[in-house]
Amino acid sequence: MIWDSRTPVTVIGLGAMGTALARAFIEAGHPTTVWNRTPDKAAPLVAEGAAHAPAVADAVAASPLVVACLTAFEDTRQALAPAGSTLAGRALVTLNSGTPSGARETAAWAAAHGARFLAGAVKNVPSAVGARDTLLYYSGDASVFDEHRATLEVLGGDTVLLGEEADLAALYESAVGATLLPALVGFFQGAAALQARGLPVSSMVGFSEAWLDMIKSLLPVYAREIDSGDYSDAASSVNLFLTARAHDEDLTRETNVDTTWALPLHDLVRRAADAGRGDQSIAALTEVLKRPRAA
Amino acid sequence: MIWDSRTPVTVIGLGAMGTALARAFIEAGHPTTVWNRTPDKAAPLVAEGAAHAPAVADAVAASPLVVACLTAFEDTRQALAPAGSTLAGRALVTLNSGTPSGARETAAWAAAHGARFLAGAVKNVPSAVGARDTLLYYSGDASVFDEHRATLEVLGGDTVLLGEEADLAALYESAVGATLLPALVGFFQGAAALQARGLPVSSMVGFSEAWLDMIKSLLPVYAREIDSGDYSDAASSVNLFLTARAHDEDLTRETNVDTTWALPLHDLVRRAADAGRGDQSIAALTEVLKRPRAA
Repeated sequence: MIWDSRTPVTVIGLGAMGTALARAFIEAGHPTTVWNRTPDKAAPLVAEGAAHAPAVADAVAASPLVVACLTAFEDTRQALAPAGSTLAGRALVTLNSGTPSGARETAAWAAAHGARFLAGAVKNVPSAVGARDTLLYYSGDASVFDEHRATLEVLGGDTVLLGEEADLAALYESAVGATLLPALVGFFQGAAALQARGLPVSSMVGFSEAWLDMIKSLLPVYAREIDSGDYSDAASSVNLFLTARAHDEDLTRETNVDTTWALPLHDLVRRAADAGRGDQSIAALTEVLKRPRAA
Repeated sequence: MIWDSRTPVTVIGLGAMGTALARAFIEAGHPTTVWNRTPDKAAPLVAEGAAHAPAVADAVAASPLVVACLTAFEDTRQALAPAGSTLAGRALVTLNSGTPSGARETAAWAAAHGARFLAGAVKNVPSAVGARDTLLYYSGDASVFDEHRATLEVLGGDTVLLGEEADLAALYESAVGATLLPALVGFFQGAAALQARGLPVSSMVGFSEAWLDMIKSLLPVYAREIDSGDYSDAASSVNLFLTARAHDEDLTRETNVDTTWALPLHDLVRRAADAGRGDQSIAALTEVLKRPRAA
């Protein structure tokens, strides 16, 4: 069957993201039941129309579609364990930043409980939930995606099924998400450097935004190079990045900002140059990151 | 005086970026003289209308405005050294990714040679030179910026003077640029992980672009937190990032991709949590990056 906009939904886990998901369902008119380990998080949502189930089994029993938004897969299974056989016949959708192995374990766990399983990720901040261009991707049981697609699109207009292997979304989540912490720490390092000079960090934001747009423009170019294995057309070569370590050391002397976190990045560049890739595109670092398979 | 679009320009250094700069000047109708240590790089530009000066002193003598585009400040001074007294009375503009100390040394060097000095950076790739929204920023002698602004705007429509201290542009260059290598290595790690699964990297590009847009949307938020020192409104807390190390280890097991370069990033997160900042915004890492000043 295809569920309509009146599909009852249960949201498990009311952190910042889970709260945003529940709110989007409530605003779209879905009967929404919420559960959180510490129940005080439910109060604002109850005021907006949600039902609060103190026991997780009751929360699961309330809806054919259960959306779990905990940090990772392990705590998702722990939180849902008391629901036991109540899960049978329901659709379980996870939205978290868990690992591929966690997704596979959860798929097996859900199957053992008679539930169909779809693993997904929200590729944006909580305040962007519900927006037309907000991206969410999923993998796993396509029947869940097809039946509940309209309900899932309440969370973001750009809703994608990557495939039927339950761990695909987690793999993409790891792959795509790998830029976040390094990019942020790079920004924080720059922020600390400006503050050391008495300059406001706000004065850098516009430049940093333009810089991220520049980086964005490189991604399709580098993806083509990596997919083809042809790194010979080097607009930005490995050798061009070799000077970066000296720049970091200079910045540390100037500003007392700790740049040592970037040393392994410079080592990667050095290893690529030592391997004869100095004149190749910086995207050739992808090959340096591949470790030999154990025999 | 204010120079018009017929200002003769000399471009020193014909790598990918220097070539793009020279080409933009030629196309805008400026009499353009070029010089490179290995003269073969000049041939395509000569075919497009540039004059080639085999000796750097002759190249400098040809124009009131000399734009040097070498990798850093040290090689800029070395390349220009044979020009000697020819520099007197001219405007020297550098476009590179040098350090603040290098900019100050070059400012003193230029002053000793009787030249006015403006240090800048192109915040984009060579193929974007000349575009309306391409950002270049400068610092140093404001009279150079004012006199030659129309000529400099040939290189990019978004042309900014940061201030009169010659090292400001290099400081912003270091600060803003600090996201580049870490963000790229994050992308390359994800690319290698997808390839280990037999998936094309191109399948990730759209998601990675959306992810960079998400990161971009965070920058003004984090800048406000850092400028105010108030990290209490944590939509993304330090604790939320604590699980990332385990995810990296899982990804390595899954895909044999080397994620050890990110270990110091996880250590920063751990140190922030250990310092009692677990419930604070991840932007509080800025404080962890500040090293105590030597007495």
